[in-house]
Amino acid sequence: MGLVVQKYGGSSVADAEGIKRVARRIVDTRKAGHEVVVVVSAMGDTTDELIELAEQVTPIPSGREFDMLLTAGERISMALLAMAIKTLGFDAQSFTGSQAGVITDSTHNKARIIDVTPGRIRNALDEGNVAIVAGFQGVSQVSKDITTLGRGGSDTTAVALAAALGAEVCEIYTDVDGVFTADPRVVKKARKIDWIAFEDMLELASSGSKVLLDRCVEYARRYNIPIHVRSSFSGLPGTIVSNDNPNKPEGGEMEQAIISGVAHDTSEAKITVVGVPDKPGEAARIFRAIADAEVNIDMVVQNVSATSTGLTDITFTLPKTEGQKAIDALGRVKEGIGYESLRYDDAIGKISLVGAGMRSNPGVTATFFEALSEAGVNIELISTSEIRISVVTRAEDVPEAVRAVHTAFGLDSDTDEAVVYGGTGR
Amino acid sequence: MGLVVQKYGGSSVADAEGIKRVARRIVDTRKAGHEVVVVVSAMGDTTDELIELAEQVTPIPSGREFDMLLTAGERISMALLAMAIKTLGFDAQSFTGSQAGVITDSTHNKARIIDVTPGRIRNALDEGNVAIVAGFQGVSQVSKDITTLGRGGSDTTAVALAAALGAEVCEIYTDVDGVFTADPRVVKKARKIDWIAFEDMLELASSGSKVLLDRCVEYARRYNIPIHVRSSFSGLPGTIVSNDNPNKPEGGEMEQAIISGVAHDTSEAKITVVGVPDKPGEAARIFRAIADAEVNIDMVVQNVSATSTGLTDITFTLPKTEGQKAIDALGRVKEGIGYESLRYDDAIGKISLVGAGMRSNPGVTATFFEALSEAGVNIELISTSEIRISVVTRAEDVPEAVRAVHTAFGLDSDTDEAVVYGGTGR
Repeated sequence: MGLVVQKYGGSSVADAEGIKRVARRIVDTRKAGHEVVVVVSAMGDTTDELIELAEQVTPIPSGREFDMLLTAGERISMALLAMAIKTLGFDAQSFTGSQAGVITDSTHNKARIIDVTPGRIRNALDEGNVAIVAGFQGVSQVSKDITTLGRGGSDTTAVALAAALGAEVCEIYTDVDGVFTADPRVVKKARKIDWIAFEDMLELASSGSKVLLDRCVEYARRYNIPIHVRSSFSGLPGTIVSNDNPNKPEGGEMEQAIISGVAHDTSEAKITVVGVPDKPGEAARIFRAIADAEVNIDMVVQNVSATSTGLTDITFTLPKTEGQKAIDALGRVKEGIGYESLRYDDAIGKISLVGAGMRSNPGVTATFFEALSEAGVNIELISTSEIRISVVTRAEDVPEAVRAVHTAFGLDSDTDEAVVYGGTGR
Repeated sequence: MGLVVQKYGGSSVADAEGIKRVARRIVDTRKAGHEVVVVVSAMGDTTDELIELAEQVTPIPSGREFDMLLTAGERISMALLAMAIKTLGFDAQSFTGSQAGVITDSTHNKARIIDVTPGRIRNALDEGNVAIVAGFQGVSQVSKDITTLGRGGSDTTAVALAAALGAEVCEIYTDVDGVFTADPRVVKKARKIDWIAFEDMLELASSGSKVLLDRCVEYARRYNIPIHVRSSFSGLPGTIVSNDNPNKPEGGEMEQAIISGVAHDTSEAKITVVGVPDKPGEAARIFRAIADAEVNIDMVVQNVSATSTGLTDITFTLPKTEGQKAIDALGRVKEGIGYESLRYDDAIGKISLVGAGMRSNPGVTATFFEALSEAGVNIELISTSEIRISVVTRAEDVPEAVRAVHTAFGLDSDTDEAVVYGGTGR
């Protein structure tokens, strides 16, 4: 009977019918006796249309004005949703990020939440309203300008409000049934995960699973807010992401599954800096140059130095979209560092196996490599954490590799599941 | 070199090209050394599209949420306009009505401005910015909710900001060249008026001239802010609306034109309450019923009582859109009042002759009626103020009547002018 925060993505409120369907779901939760705070994204393609308008007006939109523009999207969806709820006989009020007390830093287009002061939301709830809050936006603490939170911003808004209001759970409604053991578009036998620990979800998210972004999971973990990822279409229970498995048997620790799932990512490229002098400080200079160009990198591998030459190769992966920036940045420091050449390769893919259980199961790595080997997949890079193993392969090998690993770890379901799967933008 | 407030309507910023054209005009004003505050409406059909969305979601949208929805429109146009100005190398910042300090009462959908506290606008100007402000919107003083100002709201925003900031002039850019002596779509020989007094403009506006709404003119008169109505397309000087003719000869009062113009209006209907007992209080009961139904009425005429029956007829005009509401309201009080029947007629038109000069020219009324008579136009109702005569005729007689009156008062220009003419929504 507590407070529930629900977040609906753009595909759930793409048109008037979608908005009415979401309104009915909210009202059902209200009727069950819960207080409800709803975070909503912009309708369907609204954000893309606004971006296109900006591109027609200027090649380099001002960050402040771009945020002002984009936040019009949620304003539309939240007002319509509040209207639809009122039509069903329940009180509702919509609030912009600023009105809801989402306070951010001043980094336009990818602001970070630094405080949430939901006084107006609390009042609206006390007066019996469903509170509808614009996702993805806030207001800068210093300049009082409108900011947007960047990718995954609406999910983060929902988790942040849930934390500030002491919600029981933060429900993230999307167009899939939950988090799966692998991308169901690739692995027909992927299973929906009923419960997953924050830790594993974080690794899946940062390894290519699109359902939740790592930023939102990190926030939820910090404030210990359980997330329930579920479909706004089917109404079925989805995946609970939390510290403790809610279905844990009384008085005993449930045996945790060794492996949570297999994630893959084909959005990255690989850059190899060939012939780097093998002496202290060279790697630091390379990655300082990359960092100064504001390029985010993922895996980093230094190959064994060929002792005869005194040179080594350093390879790292990064989003394809940042490839050109990185190449330019490295080009500018070529003379200073004295490397021989750069190799750029964007036909790669990454497969990651995630599971806290692998800590105590030494056979996991072996099984993983055996599965890839039997599928005839060549491994180009390897990187591991305590609860994850990732490999880089040719992009075209990714589907086969994911299926092989999924089967090898006994993750396949007994039946082929028919699910719709798609990422949501923000 | 002072402060100029410019307002651009939706047709001026209908697409990216329009926004860039407006940005160039603003920059030209800035280059001429002025501080510039710009008030902008929503792009083209945006508002209609948002209204349609609301209709798809609910038959009776909540006022608060409807305002939240509609204000997304200006948010889009103002952000794009600020981007376009920055691309031309000038600093610009956009502000919502709330950020600009437009404080209103809490009447959603047709709020009234009760205060303007433009501190952030003043700061933005001091820092060298062009300040872009969303028209048509404000924030409620009591509830802190977003409000909209209703029809003509953007013009009123512009005049209110001009008053609060002590602007030299408030320029209202639209898709016509200014205020004309008659609607140029009806009277080919209509002339653009170079200057018109607030008083005459108020009468024209309330008699059917669509270029400026009476509400905005009234505000400008109260704070003595000259309005310059002009085209955002041609760049030609338009019509100055002010207390004093800026072209008045030194040291002498210029002879004021007797007649400013001829307005017409075919948006009204006529209701006749037939057979009202001719005793004190009956008219009051009729108009109390109308007022309680929140119907605005225009002209009221009580015909001479037929002494033999002790009954009289009362006729009034009102917007066609409110006809049904008025008929229903009168139907409910029929027994209490004891009138015989109602006659509803929406095939009427109103022609009004406006001019402060008619005060001291007793021949005006005679000339007016002679012109209509010669044109074979039958007069159904007459109503006069000190500086206006209005008559109601058949709707189909309106164009001929307007032309006849325009000619009779010497308003025709020497050449046929080719102008584009159209009303702007808000």
